[in-house]
Amino acid sequence: MAEPLFQRLCIIGPGLIGSSILRLAKERGDIARVLVTHAQSETTRTRVAELGIADVVEADPSRAVAGCDGVILCVPVGAYAGVMAKIAQHLAPGCILTDAGSTKGSVVRDLLPLLPAGVHLVPGHPMAGTEFSGPDAGFATLFEGRYTILTPLPGCDPAAVETVAELWRRAGAMIETMDHATHDKVVAIVSHLPHLIAFTICGTADDLAEETKEAVLKFAASGFRDFTRIAASDIAMWRDIFLNNREALLEMLARFSEDAHALGRAVRYGQAEFIEDRIKRGRKVRRDLIERKQA
Amino acid sequence: MAEPLFQRLCIIGPGLIGSSILRLAKERGDIARVLVTHAQSETTRTRVAELGIADVVEADPSRAVAGCDGVILCVPVGAYAGVMAKIAQHLAPGCILTDAGSTKGSVVRDLLPLLPAGVHLVPGHPMAGTEFSGPDAGFATLFEGRYTILTPLPGCDPAAVETVAELWRRAGAMIETMDHATHDKVVAIVSHLPHLIAFTICGTADDLAEETKEAVLKFAASGFRDFTRIAASDIAMWRDIFLNNREALLEMLARFSEDAHALGRAVRYGQAEFIEDRIKRGRKVRRDLIERKQA
Repeated sequence: MAEPLFQRLCIIGPGLIGSSILRLAKERGDIARVLVTHAQSETTRTRVAELGIADVVEADPSRAVAGCDGVILCVPVGAYAGVMAKIAQHLAPGCILTDAGSTKGSVVRDLLPLLPAGVHLVPGHPMAGTEFSGPDAGFATLFEGRYTILTPLPGCDPAAVETVAELWRRAGAMIETMDHATHDKVVAIVSHLPHLIAFTICGTADDLAEETKEAVLKFAASGFRDFTRIAASDIAMWRDIFLNNREALLEMLARFSEDAHALGRAVRYGQAEFIEDRIKRGRKVRRDLIERKQA
Repeated sequence: MAEPLFQRLCIIGPGLIGSSILRLAKERGDIARVLVTHAQSETTRTRVAELGIADVVEADPSRAVAGCDGVILCVPVGAYAGVMAKIAQHLAPGCILTDAGSTKGSVVRDLLPLLPAGVHLVPGHPMAGTEFSGPDAGFATLFEGRYTILTPLPGCDPAAVETVAELWRRAGAMIETMDHATHDKVVAIVSHLPHLIAFTICGTADDLAEETKEAVLKFAASGFRDFTRIAASDIAMWRDIFLNNREALLEMLARFSEDAHALGRAVRYGQAEFIEDRIKRGRKVRRDLIERKQA
């Protein structure tokens, strides 16, 4: 077995993502010698202790991170600033601070100002998840075959970046590195805007269901059904994602709206060629995804 | 075995839907004594003859419908007016004319003015399909467990409606009846608007992919991937659906846009409660669908 990457690793927030990291670290043994976790809720702490997926379950976040050479924030991104205010002064020199949040510009905004000298910040985003949440929802293979994107700042210690990359490699993930602004645009279009659209169209349909005596829900065909699948997601997590990737999300909503209205206008004026061209483009993107084995 | 519903049934357009009807009629034997089909393209006619799913393959649409007591239009809805101009004078008295198109107001608009006295028009919409098309794509079980919506006009012969309903029941479908305006609104929100959105977001993402050096396609996460699945659809069929359900589709696009921009505005101004409320609503609709076994 390879040497563990960390002597003492702290997972802040043992929910779907956090408890999955704990599980795989317990199973493999080459992630950390000692696994510490902190949850705000006593119910979650009790449950994590019962599950036996951490060596130490700590109620106080500052005690949880003390003496750790690795800390991973796995709470909703809206909670980062509050958590950082509590832990920043207790982070050990040389510690690697990373996270699993879906927005990355907000991480720099919320963590960097309080970052002690000698602590390495390596923002990360494992692109994996399910529609379930909480410590019981996690599983050790959650990250296998999925991408994890790292967005280190210029000048960050390359050894710290490599340690975080190796953690995700051992979790079975494929690693990509990019700047946080590009990350936030990419996830805005591939994930955040589709969720905004899915939440919205469910509401639009629900309003219409009252007018059509529920016929809408009865006949939810394949198109609509696929949209509702991604609408069944965690409320706090998605609220925080929307609020913390505001600029990129609003930019993508604006681009999408322009394009949707251009297609709507073609429908209004019967411009068959324009419509065919858009449909062809959708099929092309679908084909590209299939060729990349992402579909 | 029950008595066949028709003596001589003609399927105009043996594509995915039409060839599925032919296959199940051949298999069951209680749909029609003689199965006739007409396809415009010689390639399709040759292929249907090879497949052996029809008793008569006819190049001339007027000869195809002559002497039939049942005719089902299974061509894209944009082709109805042209087909009707060719067949109307050749429809036998007492014949039932039905269809499998996804828009129903357009059927009344295109078929009713040319309908001979004594011919019964019963518009129908089997809510089933795949992303494939053509005579090889059909299969006898395509309609099993799916809804078929009938939109008979007021004053239509109840016996003719019952015959069409029984055809779809024998195909394994569940039957619902409603007026064509309600049908067109319902399918606009559950199917046509989701397809318009899916085609659009694929294009929006493709534009962004050029800016982000293809990162968008690489990281197509679950949200976006679900959208592209329904973007892989037949071009002529969807062009015709958009153009022939214009009013309902533009109304639903307008309703959706209002709702999407209301959510976008809440993101801009950090209105957490509004955002949570919309996410909750999406989850509620999803739960409703699961309870109805439509998810």
